[in-house]
Amino acid sequence: MTTTTSQTAATQLIDVQGTSFAYREFGAPSTIPLVFLHHLTATLDDWDPAVLDGVAAKRRVIIFDNRGVGRSGGVTPDSVAAMARDAAAFLDAKGLKQVDLFGYSLGGFVAQRLAVTRPALVRRLILAGTGPAGGEGISNVGATLTEAMQKGTAQGKHPKSFLFFSPTSSSQRAGQEFLTRLAARKQDLDTPASNETIQAQVKAIAAWGSPSNAREVDLGAIQQPALVVNGNHDIMVPTSNSIALFEKLANAQLCLYPDSGHGALFQYSPEFVEQVARFLD
Amino acid sequence: MTTTTSQTAATQLIDVQGTSFAYREFGAPSTIPLVFLHHLTATLDDWDPAVLDGVAAKRRVIIFDNRGVGRSGGVTPDSVAAMARDAAAFLDAKGLKQVDLFGYSLGGFVAQRLAVTRPALVRRLILAGTGPAGGEGISNVGATLTEAMQKGTAQGKHPKSFLFFSPTSSSQRAGQEFLTRLAARKQDLDTPASNETIQAQVKAIAAWGSPSNAREVDLGAIQQPALVVNGNHDIMVPTSNSIALFEKLANAQLCLYPDSGHGALFQYSPEFVEQVARFLD
Repeated sequence: MTTTTSQTAATQLIDVQGTSFAYREFGAPSTIPLVFLHHLTATLDDWDPAVLDGVAAKRRVIIFDNRGVGRSGGVTPDSVAAMARDAAAFLDAKGLKQVDLFGYSLGGFVAQRLAVTRPALVRRLILAGTGPAGGEGISNVGATLTEAMQKGTAQGKHPKSFLFFSPTSSSQRAGQEFLTRLAARKQDLDTPASNETIQAQVKAIAAWGSPSNAREVDLGAIQQPALVVNGNHDIMVPTSNSIALFEKLANAQLCLYPDSGHGALFQYSPEFVEQVARFLD
Repeated sequence: MTTTTSQTAATQLIDVQGTSFAYREFGAPSTIPLVFLHHLTATLDDWDPAVLDGVAAKRRVIIFDNRGVGRSGGVTPDSVAAMARDAAAFLDAKGLKQVDLFGYSLGGFVAQRLAVTRPALVRRLILAGTGPAGGEGISNVGATLTEAMQKGTAQGKHPKSFLFFSPTSSSQRAGQEFLTRLAARKQDLDTPASNETIQAQVKAIAAWGSPSNAREVDLGAIQQPALVVNGNHDIMVPTSNSIALFEKLANAQLCLYPDSGHGALFQYSPEFVEQVARFLD
């Protein structure tokens, strides 16, 4: 029995083909862990503790910084394909033969790519706030991010208030609660993503979303069961992309929440945790 | 404490403006009951005990035959508007000031109509296998029903095997389990719906689905929280209608299940019961 939580789990390092990758691991023992694939700008400290610890009550959870991100070494690549190779190399270095993947936003692109390039490694997929290659509006992410950062500065708010939550008072309140939860960890914090990393990620997302790139991942080739989740009004990866994933994947469940955006999984963390538990059981 | 279940609840009669309506009532005590609005051809014996008793573990459940259906008296009207008036009259006769409504298929049309004509009566809406007025493909229901009955006769299967479940072996197996559950009640059974009732219902559904009828219910006027549920391949009320409900309702959660059709709520009854409990809490 362990009392380690997302708050207390130490940041660990592992050698991945000569590069040091940072990760944290915690939760109930389970043969197959749930591995989280992070979003644009994110580090280990950007996952909602309500989601992490909710899920970790029933299974082992692994979060990690992909190449060039946070405390991981190396240079962040500018393509989803390379990010998926790096993620697979990390999982191989950890000695994991099969995992469940939880891909959020950019991490959802990486998850789709891994599901087709390393099918034996991936048992199930959770795809939150994400969309298919060539999906509607995905390439606009650079402009959306810049605008949110400018609004955040002007209004004294965190950019995620605009990027992850709806403008309604209820969604904005949920956003404040989310940001408070994120700030609870005080020690052994990760290093923020560098500008170079963010620029490479934006380039990778723009390329993923390019209409000419629609064949990068053949969704019809993904046989793993998938749980697709989003808010009803996502301005980063428009909600229509979640519907498209549901319609094109062979075995997908779709859940869309009201009064919410890209961060619906954080706004509705109790419901989301319950869904994840049932889906992975 | 009561040990009454969907299997043992007696069929009761109540006078509704001079007409006798049949109903059953059971479940845990709760101030606000969940009232089920039935589908085309259905009587009291067509609700899945797995759903009824799953929901009834936490709240009072009421199922009833609308006018002209099963053991209820009177003549089934041929419009959703009239069915909604009859349902409201039943709820008034029962002395209920506020209810949660669970509308399945045709019952979902009635639920939408009630939500706008009697807003104070309706706290929350569960809309399964249903769609908006004027919705895609809804008017074809007569032909779909006839074809399924012919296939059922030819193949020695219940028409619901085709109407409610996908052709996959897994969905068909779930359909058999559903039919077995329905057959568990042996006593105090309801009277099957008459041909006149079914014809009136088909006419009402065709009129509801007519593109010229798209304004019968203004979805933007529905303020009640709604849970919208369906399978990924519904041939009775095409799944696109569930997406349309989600997009047009002010406060809706959407959940679509894989490998399933119109009867997804029966195929995934444990998941569905859990969702209903959380949504209504």
